[in-house]
Amino acid sequence: MNAPDPHAATRARIADAAEELFRTLGYQKTAVADIARECGMSPANVYRFYASKSAINEAITQRLLGGLSALVEEIAAGPGTAEERLRATMVEMHRRDIALFFSEKRLHDMVTAAMTEHWGVIERFIERVLGAWADLLREGMERGEFARRDPEATALTLKHLTMLWTHPLLIADCLGRGVEPEELQRDQAAALDLVMAGLKAEPC
Amino acid sequence: MNAPDPHAATRARIADAAEELFRTLGYQKTAVADIARECGMSPANVYRFYASKSAINEAITQRLLGGLSALVEEIAAGPGTAEERLRATMVEMHRRDIALFFSEKRLHDMVTAAMTEHWGVIERFIERVLGAWADLLREGMERGEFARRDPEATALTLKHLTMLWTHPLLIADCLGRGVEPEELQRDQAAALDLVMAGLKAEPC
Repeated sequence: MNAPDPHAATRARIADAAEELFRTLGYQKTAVADIARECGMSPANVYRFYASKSAINEAITQRLLGGLSALVEEIAAGPGTAEERLRATMVEMHRRDIALFFSEKRLHDMVTAAMTEHWGVIERFIERVLGAWADLLREGMERGEFARRDPEATALTLKHLTMLWTHPLLIADCLGRGVEPEELQRDQAAALDLVMAGLKAEPC
Repeated sequence: MNAPDPHAATRARIADAAEELFRTLGYQKTAVADIARECGMSPANVYRFYASKSAINEAITQRLLGGLSALVEEIAAGPGTAEERLRATMVEMHRRDIALFFSEKRLHDMVTAAMTEHWGVIERFIERVLGAWADLLREGMERGEFARRDPEATALTLKHLTMLWTHPLLIADCLGRGVEPEELQRDQAAALDLVMAGLKAEPC
């Protein structure tokens, strides 16, 4: 068993205060001094726990994506056919992304900053989701729901094909052009119909 | 018959000079004065033909996308099965996008500017491509190559699914992260295999 991190509670408290400020003020407009004030401590004390605002963002992004990948794994381990669970993970990830960009527009620049500064965190998230998808595909193939294909390669192809509904840049671009979330969801459902038909069909 | 535009030759000459400068200097760094100098005319004279640098960009983007949609229509009207031609239009569009971003990185900010300032030009391009795809899908369904689905709705779904290989933001993002063009092309081929299997399979 790992020894508990004695600083974990303080780190979480700083991350909570920062996340709240990023949501209300915006990432760019929030200074470490603001975060310190919210926590009732000095900026110097915040810097004992995080080297920079960017490091706080990294912790928040890790927490956010950790929660999302746990949810994906929970759906994957739940009831239903492999197809139903695969679809549900995609629908749920898209729903969360929409919530992030639609209800909480101010988090957008935080996510954008994370995508340039902390790609490693995002890469680990993608790896976990691809792992859950590959398992679901393998299970679906064994049950005879899906035709036989390489599960890992196919999981990667699914990621590429469903980019429009998960990539923050694209979702922000769509919503910025006035596309309604409901339209995006309908488009996703139609696309998943075609993709699932492909997964069931023998490779040509 | 429309009367020929007496200014067409001069407008094309200005657009040629501007495109060359955008390629070598970059869009942001090129001033209307530079374009005028290249054409051996005064800036005031350039403004007789184009209201702004942005209007010159609009004309260049229109020309570039006009050529690309003509190529897509040519492939669609050419020999081969509907599947072969559908794939060829997608492969060719991706190849052109890669060339634009890989060999001619400086055109990137021109395209980005066009995407925010002249969305109408891009929308008309998308409409033409979707029209060509819907025709190919209809033909493939009539020949029994593809299962019956709504051709227009399916063309739109194809656009959504293949976003990664055509959307300038995503291509630039991939190449910026060091993904090799060859890898993108292999990924596209794998994705199109799955999509084509889906188009051939009866809707579930």
